[in-house]
Amino acid sequence: MSSARPIYFLSDYGLDDDFVGLCKGVMLGIAPEATVIDLTHEVPGFGVEAGAEILEHATHYMSKNAVYLAVVDPGVGTERRALALLSADGAFLIGPDNGLLVPAVESLGGITCAVSLTNADYHIRPVSSTFHGRDIFAPAAAHLAVGLDHTLLGEVVDPASLVRVEPFGMEKEGTNTIVATITSVDRYGNARLSAPVEEVSLSFGALLKVEAGEDGDMLVRYVETFGHSKIGDLILVPDSHRRLSLSMNKGNACRALGLRIGNQVRLTLLENHSERHVGRDAEF
Amino acid sequence: MSSARPIYFLSDYGLDDDFVGLCKGVMLGIAPEATVIDLTHEVPGFGVEAGAEILEHATHYMSKNAVYLAVVDPGVGTERRALALLSADGAFLIGPDNGLLVPAVESLGGITCAVSLTNADYHIRPVSSTFHGRDIFAPAAAHLAVGLDHTLLGEVVDPASLVRVEPFGMEKEGTNTIVATITSVDRYGNARLSAPVEEVSLSFGALLKVEAGEDGDMLVRYVETFGHSKIGDLILVPDSHRRLSLSMNKGNACRALGLRIGNQVRLTLLENHSERHVGRDAEF
Amino acid sequence: MSSARPIYFLSDYGLDDDFVGLCKGVMLGIAPEATVIDLTHEVPGFGVEAGAEILEHATHYMSKNAVYLAVVDPGVGTERRALALLSADGAFLIGPDNGLLVPAVESLGGITCAVSLTNADYHIRPVSSTFHGRDIFAPAAAHLAVGLDHTLLGEVVDPASLVRVEPFGMEKEGTNTIVATITSVDRYGNARLSAPVEEVSLSFGALLKVEAGEDGDMLVRYVETFGHSKIGDLILVPDSHRRLSLSMNKGNACRALGLRIGNQVRLTLLENHSERHVGRDAEF
Repeated sequence: MSSARPIYFLSDYGLDDDFVGLCKGVMLGIAPEATVIDLTHEVPGFGVEAGAEILEHATHYMSKNAVYLAVVDPGVGTERRALALLSADGAFLIGPDNGLLVPAVESLGGITCAVSLTNADYHIRPVSSTFHGRDIFAPAAAHLAVGLDHTLLGEVVDPASLVRVEPFGMEKEGTNTIVATITSVDRYGNARLSAPVEEVSLSFGALLKVEAGEDGDMLVRYVETFGHSKIGDLILVPDSHRRLSLSMNKGNACRALGLRIGNQVRLTLLENHSERHVGRDAEF
Repeated sequence: MSSARPIYFLSDYGLDDDFVGLCKGVMLGIAPEATVIDLTHEVPGFGVEAGAEILEHATHYMSKNAVYLAVVDPGVGTERRALALLSADGAFLIGPDNGLLVPAVESLGGITCAVSLTNADYHIRPVSSTFHGRDIFAPAAAHLAVGLDHTLLGEVVDPASLVRVEPFGMEKEGTNTIVATITSVDRYGNARLSAPVEEVSLSFGALLKVEAGEDGDMLVRYVETFGHSKIGDLILVPDSHRRLSLSMNKGNACRALGLRIGNQVRLTLLENHSERHVGRDAEF
Repeated sequence: MSSARPIYFLSDYGLDDDFVGLCKGVMLGIAPEATVIDLTHEVPGFGVEAGAEILEHATHYMSKNAVYLAVVDPGVGTERRALALLSADGAFLIGPDNGLLVPAVESLGGITCAVSLTNADYHIRPVSSTFHGRDIFAPAAAHLAVGLDHTLLGEVVDPASLVRVEPFGMEKEGTNTIVATITSVDRYGNARLSAPVEEVSLSFGALLKVEAGEDGDMLVRYVETFGHSKIGDLILVPDSHRRLSLSMNKGNACRALGLRIGNQVRLTLLENHSERHVGRDAEF
């Protein structure tokens, strides 16, 4: 078995260019035994909050000895710091100091040590002003994967000094209404809402009014799976990240309703504990 | 050399989300030495037949000790079974019981043992109702890659009970006409037809009438390669899956003719054994 | 540590089909220990020059013992040769004889030996007329990765006989004007110009007139990073390939200006050594 730590790589680089390949080539040169797994490279452009959510979610499924390399970095070339974080659980997280790493490291037990990647001995030189993924972050991740002492990468900094971002949240209005944000849309057109399933007390079959997009109100059922709805039904389901998802059985909910990432969705609970099937509202 | 079996991964998850990355992370945790190769993650959405064709084709090129992980799963969250199949050739195939695995396992010698993946000890829990790739299929593939006895994954089931799908076929009309289906369209706009080259007795240079799309009839030549046609020529060529492909030299045949996956194409043989070059018909 | 050479894979196959997966499966069968890294599979269709530039750039970051597998091959199925090149630095490069490999091998010290891949013992048979990546190039790369003597792959040929392509260049007009070509556009809309930063003597803050697209003249500053401009500013920056890039801070320069790969851009130097910030011209 390889003695190198696995590297989990998330970015907004996409796969149309050679950005990801160059980062991997740099890592392979430093850590030939490390396995690199792509979490995703399609974090919506400059989407620090979206990237932070995906990275935090991934920590629940990845090896404990992981190195997370995360690059969503609209501030590249400015004074923002480049970081390596050691979590209490023993994982490393590498990326810009813009909040991207914070929810993930908190999920991994919190920050044991934070280092600013200022030691040029571990940079690829000349350091580009636009591509720190290749020149600063990837080499740091690879060195950590093969056992370098993280304090050699630069100066230890105070964890309290790290930039944090407000994670996507939801608001409650009274006792039966929540307002959530669409945090991502997958290829099937399912809209992930910023509402964790655990924080809403819905029973399967619950009936809700949905206000979203330009199409007025709709009625939806909260169901356990697509299999509990009919083709074309608009539904709420718990998704793979344990969030509420606004979905359409065999259809594309976002296209049908004109919804996008960042849109607000208001959900009003009309009826809980019901199993009766209700289709789409007539006015929809 | 690694003692783990290689894992070949096919799905319709796309690469825009973290679905594939999460499945790989789960597999790496169980089978750190296994190499995972992406066959493709762009099987057209819910395309069980298309996925089955791609998977079957791949079996001709992959290692004998392969583990195939295939997830095109419109029935996720319903009662459809999750399967692991052992082929007579010694490969494993993991995926939903919807026909996706059947042509591939038949190409690998047929089913020696079929297991329904009901043993929760080998699931990632809690099992999501929408993402069995991560929670049921990927862990099963990884356990098999590192040598787990497949009968531990659940209950042995009768191979005759498996769901089968009708593979894309072609019909003959009289002695000189076939009707085939467009089973896939590649990035260059080449339309793969459901007609295996071996089952049509065309000689290179044969002249055919094509009826497809909205543009009336066209004449095409069956040629060995693009190099045997002129730029802009519409041609039939044997493609990399040994199927007839309707193609345009340096052009995009599907865009030009308004063709899509699932469209029917009627081919009538006008002239065999001819080498004379005929361009596109005047009415096209 | 693996004794196999790493394989760096570049193509125009895209990831929507199974082309890349099949090539990797073939390589894994021959060289189970080799690590394959995707440089990119989105070289613009039939873009031999663009692929050559990406491949050459990558050589500056990859391991010295690399095997480069590069397939941008509009001539597949014609008489063009299939090549393996050994560079003076000890790397191998595999691909079609159409100029794709030449800038890279020159960057790696020049050609020590060139072999035409004519030995059918190292082909996957039957050899498809449209998919030499799977049937000829990938197996050659894998055999070289695990130490096969390259002269066994076919006939040694004269390096002087190789097809070369004119790399993207730039023209000088008088002392203060250059005309460059847009060689690629990344996902953020940045236009890479065929002008190497080293060959233009610009100081940061220099003011230039840009003529490109349909929008008449614009004024831009040459800045070190995006951080030295304001949101919405059109700028010139040195990009990750050490080329001039025409970019828009937090915007999409190519969409804004209607620019595409292949367009010509004329740059006239108005003012050097200035740090004064000038925004976009009023007429733009």
